[in-house]
Amino acid sequence: MLLHCPGMSAPAISRYPVPTLAELPDDIRARIVEVQQKAGFVPNVFVTLAHRPDEFRAFFAYHDALMLKDGGLTKAEREMIVVATSGANDCLYCVVAHGALLRIYEKNPLVADQVAVNHRKADITPRQRAMLDFAVRVTSESHLVGDGDFAALREHGFSDDDAWDIAGIAALFGLSNRIANVSSMRPNDEFYLMGRVPRAKG
Amino acid sequence: MLLHCPGMSAPAISRYPVPTLAELPDDIRARIVEVQQKAGFVPNVFVTLAHRPDEFRAFFAYHDALMLKDGGLTKAEREMIVVATSGANDCLYCVVAHGALLRIYEKNPLVADQVAVNHRKADITPRQRAMLDFAVRVTSESHLVGDGDFAALREHGFSDDDAWDIAGIAALFGLSNRIANVSSMRPNDEFYLMGRVPRAKG
Amino acid sequence: MLLHCPGMSAPAISRYPVPTLAELPDDIRARIVEVQQKAGFVPNVFVTLAHRPDEFRAFFAYHDALMLKDGGLTKAEREMIVVATSGANDCLYCVVAHGALLRIYEKNPLVADQVAVNHRKADITPRQRAMLDFAVRVTSESHLVGDGDFAALREHGFSDDDAWDIAGIAALFGLSNRIANVSSMRPNDEFYLMGRVPRAKG
Amino acid sequence: MLLHCPGMSAPAISRYPVPTLAELPDDIRARIVEVQQKAGFVPNVFVTLAHRPDEFRAFFAYHDALMLKDGGLTKAEREMIVVATSGANDCLYCVVAHGALLRIYEKNPLVADQVAVNHRKADITPRQRAMLDFAVRVTSESHLVGDGDFAALREHGFSDDDAWDIAGIAALFGLSNRIANVSSMRPNDEFYLMGRVPRAKG
Amino acid sequence: MLLHCPGMSAPAISRYPVPTLAELPDDIRARIVEVQQKAGFVPNVFVTLAHRPDEFRAFFAYHDALMLKDGGLTKAEREMIVVATSGANDCLYCVVAHGALLRIYEKNPLVADQVAVNHRKADITPRQRAMLDFAVRVTSESHLVGDGDFAALREHGFSDDDAWDIAGIAALFGLSNRIANVSSMRPNDEFYLMGRVPRAKG
Amino acid sequence: MLLHCPGMSAPAISRYPVPTLAELPDDIRARIVEVQQKAGFVPNVFVTLAHRPDEFRAFFAYHDALMLKDGGLTKAEREMIVVATSGANDCLYCVVAHGALLRIYEKNPLVADQVAVNHRKADITPRQRAMLDFAVRVTSESHLVGDGDFAALREHGFSDDDAWDIAGIAALFGLSNRIANVSSMRPNDEFYLMGRVPRAKG
Repeated sequence: MLLHCPGMSAPAISRYPVPTLAELPDDIRARIVEVQQKAGFVPNVFVTLAHRPDEFRAFFAYHDALMLKDGGLTKAEREMIVVATSGANDCLYCVVAHGALLRIYEKNPLVADQVAVNHRKADITPRQRAMLDFAVRVTSESHLVGDGDFAALREHGFSDDDAWDIAGIAALFGLSNRIANVSSMRPNDEFYLMGRVPRAKG
Repeated sequence: MLLHCPGMSAPAISRYPVPTLAELPDDIRARIVEVQQKAGFVPNVFVTLAHRPDEFRAFFAYHDALMLKDGGLTKAEREMIVVATSGANDCLYCVVAHGALLRIYEKNPLVADQVAVNHRKADITPRQRAMLDFAVRVTSESHLVGDGDFAALREHGFSDDDAWDIAGIAALFGLSNRIANVSSMRPNDEFYLMGRVPRAKG
Repeated sequence: MLLHCPGMSAPAISRYPVPTLAELPDDIRARIVEVQQKAGFVPNVFVTLAHRPDEFRAFFAYHDALMLKDGGLTKAEREMIVVATSGANDCLYCVVAHGALLRIYEKNPLVADQVAVNHRKADITPRQRAMLDFAVRVTSESHLVGDGDFAALREHGFSDDDAWDIAGIAALFGLSNRIANVSSMRPNDEFYLMGRVPRAKG
Repeated sequence: MLLHCPGMSAPAISRYPVPTLAELPDDIRARIVEVQQKAGFVPNVFVTLAHRPDEFRAFFAYHDALMLKDGGLTKAEREMIVVATSGANDCLYCVVAHGALLRIYEKNPLVADQVAVNHRKADITPRQRAMLDFAVRVTSESHLVGDGDFAALREHGFSDDDAWDIAGIAALFGLSNRIANVSSMRPNDEFYLMGRVPRAKG
Repeated sequence: MLLHCPGMSAPAISRYPVPTLAELPDDIRARIVEVQQKAGFVPNVFVTLAHRPDEFRAFFAYHDALMLKDGGLTKAEREMIVVATSGANDCLYCVVAHGALLRIYEKNPLVADQVAVNHRKADITPRQRAMLDFAVRVTSESHLVGDGDFAALREHGFSDDDAWDIAGIAALFGLSNRIANVSSMRPNDEFYLMGRVPRAKG
Repeated sequence: MLLHCPGMSAPAISRYPVPTLAELPDDIRARIVEVQQKAGFVPNVFVTLAHRPDEFRAFFAYHDALMLKDGGLTKAEREMIVVATSGANDCLYCVVAHGALLRIYEKNPLVADQVAVNHRKADITPRQRAMLDFAVRVTSESHLVGDGDFAALREHGFSDDDAWDIAGIAALFGLSNRIANVSSMRPNDEFYLMGRVPRAKG
């Protein structure tokens, strides 16, 4: 029951079967319990990917490698990349779920919607604008990426290692966007409001 | 001072000059005062269009003709069309401002984000899905619209008059999207949260 | 009979019902009579929009606000914008009807076809080329418009107010293109030849 | 002087050098003289291609093979294909020059502009609509052409040999569109009016 | 020297630094040694990803989860998906390297080039054609994927689990394509010829 | 039997009838015999075009005019243009057949696959990169070609005459790509391996 919305006739959270916690391998159940304790609920991406344990493990290992590593990008900036590129890919799950994280990390209730719709109009720095221009280019036309793109990043102080981080995040969530779109992964209702009410973070 | 955010260094709400209320013709000031009394604040579209009084009048006359008229579409459905097509046009102002209206009219805190990102994944009826498919087609490739599109609408009970309403709304907000994008019209901060917290509608 | 082509089996001028003059509100009939006296015939846009009087009034109010106002653009240049953007939107009615106006205002029988097909090859000034480049960008990718676009206009002497005029015309006729495409609005036969035969203007 | 517009400062008809008649090989000069006697003027495509005699000969041989051969398409229909596909490729020379031929062959002063802007709104038969749908598909996405496209043509009575004719004409003028666009080939002023004034054909 | 081409001035295999074997963590070195022993050389993807050990591990874990698992797709079919979608993303590394694998698994020297350029013209079964149509749709417009796409797969005997496999492979190599494009990852010379000469497989 | 693969159930080489040598006009048969003696086999383009003798003659005349003429481009560079633009048009026949020629002329077994997939990652000179950038632009958006494109070529030493050669080759093979795609012209098996094995050229 942990994995299902209370009440009857809840909308499906995936086109695919969703396992119960009891059915899952120990390590996956442990990760889900951990996120639940931290967030207060289980983001649907965990339970909708869990029917494929090996892919689940690989996805979250990749996620952690890019999103938790040290480097020139703040946590908020990494989420900004996810939101902008998921907007470009029309992925509902990732825009809503990572929009929530972006609002919380940035302590800014407006920036996620801005970045999701049109990052060129968002309340971000010129450096962040350059970062998102690059991320969107990697998302939409990576075959054209070349020296000029790296030079544009360097003008804003991004190293080539930062460029890899940006591209890697855009690429990983491009994967995630496709899985979420194909499986009709549904964002938890909780995400929509998170980080929007200032005192809620008090 | 009505027209400006309190505090210093507020972000510009338009690339163009924004008149003060005192500078405006009486009819326009009256309309702005009216919306302020009703909404509790003045949506920026009113003050950013006001430097062109004749265009202001024509735009809101067109708006009222399509959004307030009787017909086969509910108020919420009309806003749904605005949100879906503004999403297709990457228009921040219209997605945020009309997303708020959609949440309020539909009494649904989730539907606006869903429709803005990908209406095919939204909690809407098949009839509304067909309505938005048509609206997005009018937005993106109106030169291809033909008998088949009208037939698809009819299968869901839409009359040809409803089809005109849908197309008209998509077309009017296509205009609005372009003006807002070009002028960098900024959505009021208030819109982002409106209709998201159930009790707020008490 | 004013509103219908003489002879039997004339092609429909709209997918929607076309009211007779007698059925129309006085102000709309008056405007139609006026244009008929001036042009010698009634452009179909008037009678095909007339089944929606409020939208009719708003559309022509918007049209007059942008097309008849003072400013940095000549009448011919405004029609040039209509023709170029309507060409980009594949709108038969607007290319043909406004092509006629452009030929007449510019006293140039060639320019309308040039601008409709590819304004980059037209007999226009570099300033007009920049104007149309901006208009087409507003039409096709307004979400990308930014400082660089305004700077490019300024190099050719366009003020920001002129930029608004260009964008406004592109946006209004983007609306008009969509309505005309969806309703299969048919250009009057008269438009095709207008302004093509020099002596006709003698 | 045959090859140049009378008067000074005539606009260039090509970005490339245009040979005089005297400079040309006999067979090419003979073809140009022949077309001049028939049309009353020399279409610019002849003189702008003439600086490359071998390519000139191959182009016109290809042209004649497809446009003068027997088969299921009328002469007017072949020009219709040229106009529709040249419109899709934004080629000014071919839209204007072949638009003139289409008006003359079809004895219809309206059809060329209709087909150039949006053939779906043109006064043509359903069979011709299917023909142009196929031609535009070959022009824009030939890699997707398959059995379904041939079946759609067959429903309108087109044989596979007709399909080759349609595709061949679309392909040849796709070549011609690219050469004309790259060289800024200018349509002769004469073309714009040809076939528009009914009595002129009397 | 294992990691570098013999001879001087070999072209760079990545825009990023390439570690030597000795610098690598044991598990990564072990995997590289294993693939070298099996293939006779070290595919560049191993050494160009190795500067990011955690991402390396996650990527190959994901790869193994999708490419080595049981299921309704043959090994050759999985490579077919990689080649078709990498062609759609213009990714040189993946087209060349996985083209080699496809030729070898399928024991067909022609199929990789066919699938990379246009899978609709390839020597594959109708079932494989449907598989690749789905894979390319996931690659290019996953936001539109819906019931109809799953139904089309089912007509060819693909289960929903197979659909996930196809989508997962397309999504993972979409990630890989972006990393390879951004880093200018160079395919090893060896790949180009592998599987092309029948006796080489004797 | 010259024209058909040995063995039964060979895949069709065209959607259209393929004439036997005996059926063909003398000049066409002579050309086919000549190429067969030179290449050791008859490329399918010859026999699949031969059912239309006049188009066959025009096509090969055009081919020879552009591919065999003197000028600033090497034979290998001309084939490079064919391969890059045929890749952009997803044309299997031309990528495979001209890829073989490119490998042979350039004495480089890798370059054809590189150019076909993404010429920006190919082992070519900056001058060749500029040449292919121009060729792809002519292929995909010739209506935008203008002074800037010619200037970019001149920076690499290309004359305007060279630009015509590049554009002409791109345009001719754009024609060829469309015919091959529509007719499902099949590349001969022989092409796939040609020029890949160094000693074969010894």
